[in-house]
Amino acid sequence: MKLTTMARSSDCLARAGCFETTHGSVATPVFMPVGTHASVKAMPPHDLKEIGVQVVLANTYHLYLRPGDELIRSLGGLGAFMGWPGPTLTDSGGFQVFSLSDLFSLDEDGITFRSHLDGSEHRLTPEKAVRIQENLGADIIMCLDQCPPYPADEAVLTDALRRTTSWAKRCQAAKTRTDQALFAIIQGGVDLDKRQQHCDELIELGFDGYALGGLSVGEPFAEMVRVVRAIAPGMPKEKPRYLMGVGSPDVLIESVRFGMDMFDSVYPTRMARHGSVMTHRGVLNMRNAQFASDSKPLDPDCSCPVCRRFSRAYVRHLVKSGELLAHYLTTYHNIHFLTELMAQMRDAIFDDRFMKWRTAFWRQYYDTAPPDDLDLPPSRG
Amino acid sequence: MKLTTMARSSDCLARAGCFETTHGSVATPVFMPVGTHASVKAMPPHDLKEIGVQVVLANTYHLYLRPGDELIRSLGGLGAFMGWPGPTLTDSGGFQVFSLSDLFSLDEDGITFRSHLDGSEHRLTPEKAVRIQENLGADIIMCLDQCPPYPADEAVLTDALRRTTSWAKRCQAAKTRTDQALFAIIQGGVDLDKRQQHCDELIELGFDGYALGGLSVGEPFAEMVRVVRAIAPGMPKEKPRYLMGVGSPDVLIESVRFGMDMFDSVYPTRMARHGSVMTHRGVLNMRNAQFASDSKPLDPDCSCPVCRRFSRAYVRHLVKSGELLAHYLTTYHNIHFLTELMAQMRDAIFDDRFMKWRTAFWRQYYDTAPPDDLDLPPSRG
Repeated sequence: MKLTTMARSSDCLARAGCFETTHGSVATPVFMPVGTHASVKAMPPHDLKEIGVQVVLANTYHLYLRPGDELIRSLGGLGAFMGWPGPTLTDSGGFQVFSLSDLFSLDEDGITFRSHLDGSEHRLTPEKAVRIQENLGADIIMCLDQCPPYPADEAVLTDALRRTTSWAKRCQAAKTRTDQALFAIIQGGVDLDKRQQHCDELIELGFDGYALGGLSVGEPFAEMVRVVRAIAPGMPKEKPRYLMGVGSPDVLIESVRFGMDMFDSVYPTRMARHGSVMTHRGVLNMRNAQFASDSKPLDPDCSCPVCRRFSRAYVRHLVKSGELLAHYLTTYHNIHFLTELMAQMRDAIFDDRFMKWRTAFWRQYYDTAPPDDLDLPPSRG
Repeated sequence: MKLTTMARSSDCLARAGCFETTHGSVATPVFMPVGTHASVKAMPPHDLKEIGVQVVLANTYHLYLRPGDELIRSLGGLGAFMGWPGPTLTDSGGFQVFSLSDLFSLDEDGITFRSHLDGSEHRLTPEKAVRIQENLGADIIMCLDQCPPYPADEAVLTDALRRTTSWAKRCQAAKTRTDQALFAIIQGGVDLDKRQQHCDELIELGFDGYALGGLSVGEPFAEMVRVVRAIAPGMPKEKPRYLMGVGSPDVLIESVRFGMDMFDSVYPTRMARHGSVMTHRGVLNMRNAQFASDSKPLDPDCSCPVCRRFSRAYVRHLVKSGELLAHYLTTYHNIHFLTELMAQMRDAIFDDRFMKWRTAFWRQYYDTAPPDDLDLPPSRG
């Protein structure tokens, strides 16, 4: 998989590009909404298409346990199963095994765990993670990795990196399908030397794309940006660079600034189900009494159909009444907001005004200047 | 309000017609989905439009309590509030006061009750029911009635009829808006003489339309059809005839056969949220294990987008995983099914083959002949 850079900022490392998948091309930087159980919660696929979503992510751990990867394969693969005609991406299942399951053994060969659904015992190895993802059939699949917690002891970190590299090699060897791209995951916590070393190891092996994993797991914002700033510029220029698990505008913008291309998170959909909507002036929670008779749209600066047709008062009424439609309306708007945000970033990069756009966005959304004065280490890129 | 009959069956009392409302014309017979809190559960209004829904019903009791009828008026009325451009109908609130609230006093003047939401005390009178419905602003509003339980003593029934007639007069007198049609509700349980007498009393007063209320409250199917068969033919021919609270195909078909025009029920939407879908071969529940790997659409004989795009296996997976999208897909399909059923009935009436169509539908859907041999009393119409 080759990422073609179409435009590059002159005063930062932001880049706009595109890459091809079996189910279509993807313009970067791109935000990918998460459909854990092969459904972006509350969203019919035709609405995702209407919004302009390019890639949908699904979780291997969940789909392996229910309804099963063999079943999904027999029904034509993930995209056909969920009625989504565009590109898809599956994670390796590793992150969820560590965070959701009753983990009871991690060894050199793999992970043994109990399902969070019914307590049944399962084993995940690099080979099995690839086989499951080949059955699911997403356009982009991920190597099984070990995501250390934050903070982590140096010994734990070192062990996780060694194992993750070894597993990445095994995933590479296990891969049989040629219509799927395989991405490796760079770990290393917030230790920049270890990150760089791990990044170099994986580049040496040669993958279709590279992801920064193990971030957005509790570390401060500035720490995350330090890692991105330090590592992103050294990731291969002609391959997609994917920052896993982030969806808030601040991280998206600061990561694009340093050259990242792909992002995923449950942030917009989870926020929506709690009644929170992103607007150009920041996040608003529709449970708040101040919106009870507010005839304005969720975001007066938004052009989405939800904002064209419904008032804050109506959405608040639905939220307060526990109506299912509330989830649909807030989710639609939030995914539209992030999809539009990425499109704005691409436009700004093409016009070489990304840093100017960034300052304006931060001022409007966060009511503050962007974090130019972060104590960030110099990048090597 | 005038119902124009466009076609009439030669071998039964079924009729196809239309009437005009402030927000557009309605072709009858028509099924109206219920949006209790000003939202047909899980359904964006543009999808209702796409399906071909003609009228949306909302519940006065719920909207009066939350968010309040004054608020809805200030936001442009029910249709504007919920983003539904077509015709709307509100019930009087009476039925819900009797069935949902903590009722503590029924007198000649009105009903005092406590909200099921917060226990607050409220009073509903015919005048107030009209005022609330004028604030909500639906195209069709209903007189406040007293719906007796099933079964009911004769004394209770007699009292309810007397009060309902008296309240209907007061509703008529209280009405100030000229852009809303006011329908009266015929009560009388399954006592055909009392039904007829009440029907005559209300016709004498002269309303824009007439509803059969107090049915589908626990009486057997055959009893309900007996009432419809006895009373419907004597209801004014040039006014809409509305059977309240029914949505299963058997009742819809048998009621159309005897000349009813309008129907509403939470049946399709509630069924959907329990995973049950209507198909041309009867109801199927997607929770059933037999659908786990079924690649067929919900209903192979259905042309709706859900059936064109998704498999039973996928819908079952969503239901089992508790995914919000399950509600959307099953609700869309069920409302489409009933909307299409009504369109089929209209077509069959226009082609004067309603009774033939009815036999075929019963055979296919219920796997039995239609109830031609019901012990029904002769109609007077």
